[in-house]
Amino acid sequence: MNRGQTTSNFYAVIPAGGSGTRLWPVSRRGRPKFLQPLPGPKTMIQETVHRLAPLAAPDRIQIITGPAHASAIAEQLPELPASAYIVEPAPRGTGPAIGLGVALAARAGADTIVGSFAADHYVRHPERFEQDVRAAIEVAKQGYLVTIGIKPEYPETGYGYIHVGERLGKFAGRDAYRVRQFVEKPNLETARDYVESGDYLWNASMFVWRADVLLDEMRRLLPEHHAALTRIAAAWDTPEREQVLAELWDGLENVTIDNGILELSERVAVVPSDMGWTDLGDWHSVGSLRSDGDGASVVANAEVIEIDSGENVVEGCGRLVALVGVENLIVVDTGDALLVCDRSRAQDVKAIVERLHAGGRADLL
Amino acid sequence: MNRGQTTSNFYAVIPAGGSGTRLWPVSRRGRPKFLQPLPGPKTMIQETVHRLAPLAAPDRIQIITGPAHASAIAEQLPELPASAYIVEPAPRGTGPAIGLGVALAARAGADTIVGSFAADHYVRHPERFEQDVRAAIEVAKQGYLVTIGIKPEYPETGYGYIHVGERLGKFAGRDAYRVRQFVEKPNLETARDYVESGDYLWNASMFVWRADVLLDEMRRLLPEHHAALTRIAAAWDTPEREQVLAELWDGLENVTIDNGILELSERVAVVPSDMGWTDLGDWHSVGSLRSDGDGASVVANAEVIEIDSGENVVEGCGRLVALVGVENLIVVDTGDALLVCDRSRAQDVKAIVERLHAGGRADLL
Repeated sequence: MNRGQTTSNFYAVIPAGGSGTRLWPVSRRGRPKFLQPLPGPKTMIQETVHRLAPLAAPDRIQIITGPAHASAIAEQLPELPASAYIVEPAPRGTGPAIGLGVALAARAGADTIVGSFAADHYVRHPERFEQDVRAAIEVAKQGYLVTIGIKPEYPETGYGYIHVGERLGKFAGRDAYRVRQFVEKPNLETARDYVESGDYLWNASMFVWRADVLLDEMRRLLPEHHAALTRIAAAWDTPEREQVLAELWDGLENVTIDNGILELSERVAVVPSDMGWTDLGDWHSVGSLRSDGDGASVVANAEVIEIDSGENVVEGCGRLVALVGVENLIVVDTGDALLVCDRSRAQDVKAIVERLHAGGRADLL
Repeated sequence: MNRGQTTSNFYAVIPAGGSGTRLWPVSRRGRPKFLQPLPGPKTMIQETVHRLAPLAAPDRIQIITGPAHASAIAEQLPELPASAYIVEPAPRGTGPAIGLGVALAARAGADTIVGSFAADHYVRHPERFEQDVRAAIEVAKQGYLVTIGIKPEYPETGYGYIHVGERLGKFAGRDAYRVRQFVEKPNLETARDYVESGDYLWNASMFVWRADVLLDEMRRLLPEHHAALTRIAAAWDTPEREQVLAELWDGLENVTIDNGILELSERVAVVPSDMGWTDLGDWHSVGSLRSDGDGASVVANAEVIEIDSGENVVEGCGRLVALVGVENLIVVDTGDALLVCDRSRAQDVKAIVERLHAGGRADLL
């Protein structure tokens, strides 16, 4: 165990994309979820980097994002050097994004270990996260593509699941298993079966692997991507970087790392975890996370006066919010838009965003 | 009938006081209900004056209000001369306010007819209102203190009622009756009994009387008020007005015209009306008035996007309001405060205002 010191050949890649439409109107294209202080006080990408600090020194953290967000991220993370940013000319899915991060890390040595962690997920127990990653690093050294799977706390229908296979052994205090199958978001009945069986984990999109192992699988499964990304990586520290990137990136097919590699590879392993993970995808989850479970409403950035009200989720923008005789509501107040939503309908906030798209209301997206 | 021309010796007095706390956060002390465009597009006091235009020329309309609101009212009513405003140094209830209006009108002749109409009530059928007032004027000429009572549309518990007595006859096409009794706001069961009996009318605080009759009753029932108000009226057009007002007004006991005179007098008559009156006292009533009865939400001053929502009342301030899975809510959005209230609890908005008072939040009152 290396507790308390960073792992010398470990690199962390943080894909920072996606706007988090179910967290509208706080989350917008111009200031997406990962830049927001959810649940607060730090922003989600600040928390993500902070969580990785015991594992990876600042010069071994790479943020992969689009041109629109690089400078906003850099403002939030002054501790990272300019070289930390990999700016994609256009979004091509997590396959090319993470693949490029791995190809760049591989320059430090073929056996470099790379972990990939979303910029906008929440972890209640960061110390368990650290130990899970250390265990995954040990499994990855054996040549596996390792995912960290979350022991489900309830039958969530909004997540994909991992069907756990044969046990591989104990690594740095954690059990590891082969992955039998990745499965799509289930309906409620199936989700209940998954949770009861004990054989399924939530897919949290946390991956750890040796750079050479991932690149080998990419060469086999996505050969065109492999060829382009290794050429880009080779040009990265030369005057040709921009030209090669411009030449090759646009032609890359859109693909996720899950669909393009993990679901097809036979070298995938999983470390089950109870780190208290959530993708914090909607206002109901934000409210649940902030709640003490005492039935009171949870409030951020607002003065709230309530009469016969409770279990509401209020995200304000400084104005007074007065609630009379209402329960289980989400009230999100921003400078130009106000959301009032039943908590059971938190997923449907994305329908509002779709309506705004359809109506050409770019000012509110 | 004088339809189409104003009535030569008729004066209208409009008490403009009270902030309408149940219409918070739109209605505030500094910009009370009568200055607001409810239900819109004109403000309530503009509608009130407009409704009286067929009955009283602009130089026979008197607005009685406090120092804080006179100039705001004058901005909204450029058609009225400066002499239309009677500014009370301090609020002393409707007794002194209306009494002074009557004493001033009496200077035009003892048999001058004066009507009093609140500045912040709504009338759906102004042409019926006009005819009701013309009928009340004919009754008033016979020496009665006449109130126009509203035939109840449902068992409202928020209004006082008038118990109708013996029939007096037909006047300008309307029946008139003696008043047996004024009764306080009833509970729901009593209100139902009242409505079923057909013997009770809503008290809409609309009064019509001869100036000499009202002043005679005031001399008998409120002799100190009578003495002070006639002295003030005598000084009104002299250089002593301010001095006499300052000297006498503060010492006047607080009393309503209902408690002080009408409930005690035996000369009170009533003209029943179906003019479509409401005091528009809360957001639920505002919503009901604006509704087409089709189950859709009613919206003012906002762009609203709804997903599976309906029967909401939205009063905006220009921002987008997005509603997901919510029904029968009141959402009132202003620059510094937001109200979300169940429609069945519209009366309890005043409890928010009380909390703000208790908390010293004058900025939001």
